[in-house]
Amino acid sequence: MPGEFDFLTWIASRRRDSALVRIPTGDDLAGVQIPDGELLLVGVDQVLDGVHFDSAVHTPRQIGCKAMNRNLSDCAAMACLPAAAVATVALPANAGLDFAKELYLGLEEAASRFECPIIGGDTSSWTGRLVMTVTILGRSAGIEPIRRGGARAGDSIYVSGLLGGSILGRHMTFTPRVDLARQLAGGGHLNAMIDLSDGLSRDLGHICRQSKMGAVLEADCIPIHADAVRLSRDGRSPLLHALHDGEDYELLCTGEVNHPGLTRIGRITSEPGIFLREGTSLAPLEPLAWEHRL
Amino acid sequence: MPGEFDFLTWIASRRRDSALVRIPTGDDLAGVQIPDGELLLVGVDQVLDGVHFDSAVHTPRQIGCKAMNRNLSDCAAMACLPAAAVATVALPANAGLDFAKELYLGLEEAASRFECPIIGGDTSSWTGRLVMTVTILGRSAGIEPIRRGGARAGDSIYVSGLLGGSILGRHMTFTPRVDLARQLAGGGHLNAMIDLSDGLSRDLGHICRQSKMGAVLEADCIPIHADAVRLSRDGRSPLLHALHDGEDYELLCTGEVNHPGLTRIGRITSEPGIFLREGTSLAPLEPLAWEHRL
Repeated sequence: MPGEFDFLTWIASRRRDSALVRIPTGDDLAGVQIPDGELLLVGVDQVLDGVHFDSAVHTPRQIGCKAMNRNLSDCAAMACLPAAAVATVALPANAGLDFAKELYLGLEEAASRFECPIIGGDTSSWTGRLVMTVTILGRSAGIEPIRRGGARAGDSIYVSGLLGGSILGRHMTFTPRVDLARQLAGGGHLNAMIDLSDGLSRDLGHICRQSKMGAVLEADCIPIHADAVRLSRDGRSPLLHALHDGEDYELLCTGEVNHPGLTRIGRITSEPGIFLREGTSLAPLEPLAWEHRL
Repeated sequence: MPGEFDFLTWIASRRRDSALVRIPTGDDLAGVQIPDGELLLVGVDQVLDGVHFDSAVHTPRQIGCKAMNRNLSDCAAMACLPAAAVATVALPANAGLDFAKELYLGLEEAASRFECPIIGGDTSSWTGRLVMTVTILGRSAGIEPIRRGGARAGDSIYVSGLLGGSILGRHMTFTPRVDLARQLAGGGHLNAMIDLSDGLSRDLGHICRQSKMGAVLEADCIPIHADAVRLSRDGRSPLLHALHDGEDYELLCTGEVNHPGLTRIGRITSEPGIFLREGTSLAPLEPLAWEHRL
């Protein structure tokens, strides 16, 4: 029966040289040289079987990919460059070495798109269900990180892509908007940004609360994904899905920018509260999206 | 019923200023300014209910403490200073906000001993058992990190503390040897180091393999903990427990040092293989410690 160390040996064999990595996988910690003067960014996200994916439906490659991409999307939110990642996996008993390798290949597939080396991790097996976490390290690399709290009254509000219904599949297959975020932030007229993981209504709430601002969204301007239309057979309108579904992993940002990848959906206001304008009606917009209950 | 965001609000209220933290908890990523010229060290470890702790026996405070201390012990292994940490928790359904807070207070209790701020994380609830991970960031802070692969033929081999039987309780309550490691490494005659998590026999194997060296241990010199004696009622000798039990979280290092916190237990050899000398017998020492099966 293969063990943890067989897996680690295989991982070590896939190691590639990377300019910033001074101490690669194999010691208690890996060592990274962040270039002088740059800010290090760090965050972590987990994916749990039955919550963020379904191991009866999704392949281990897809699961690994999503675990990494959720974190790369956080780099996009801050407009930083991915620098390196570490990961953990809690494997169900008897999952097997091939399953573990596929998870890793999923991590690698997602990370390699951004030349982000995987430099460490921790593997355990247990009788519970599959859990993966990825910790992402980013670097500012010449662009001041864009934060949630920078929105100013009068800012336009933009989103990338099309929203809603990602549960039909896109939540597993999205592409983190790192390149777009770097382009936008490099332009210099971006004041606040976040990636859409909790849903537009809640994530805009994060920006408004931290910026001590309010917002008015224009219902007619919200870019609705075909998946939101398909999902609307559940009785909630496509617009409701676009406003509240989580896991779009698109960018939500404020400022004054002109980019074909963005749609302008509203305006930041100095009055608190988030409102939705539909025709002549202006109604408060409450978040309906997912929140983990404790 | 409280939710994830109540927990995050409470965590944010406990935030303390920290010199290196430029972007604290609250954005998609936190930002840390690693001083120019210093190396960033990073690693991650997880703790799983039923594997690394038992939620029926251990308090959430102890569990949080262990999750953090495992990672701080990795800083000790590399002789770096803890700089910051991020953590994840997958909470069993209905664990409750107070339980979550106790886990966090455990993380904080362990981290604050080394002035290591917790700057981010991810909270989920699920129907599975409790999982926590901690990712630790360390900084070289004037001392070149000590690696596993630096042992040289003729080096003395040392351990800190007393070994074996940690399963009786010490695996939950140990103190990471960060201060000792910094003292030792600052002295300049340390060639290789690791913390004892997989067990002396296996962890010495990591050093020897990466250093392309062998070793001879002196059975009479192995410092045996009273817990190993207590545990020897299972039929395995105290020495076997000290050699093979995992989770001592003491330092194993090689070089030439003179420190009251260390015991000299053997010598690094240019011939491959790890041997144990007992009286006049010299026998190969195979690792018997825990390995996760896949």
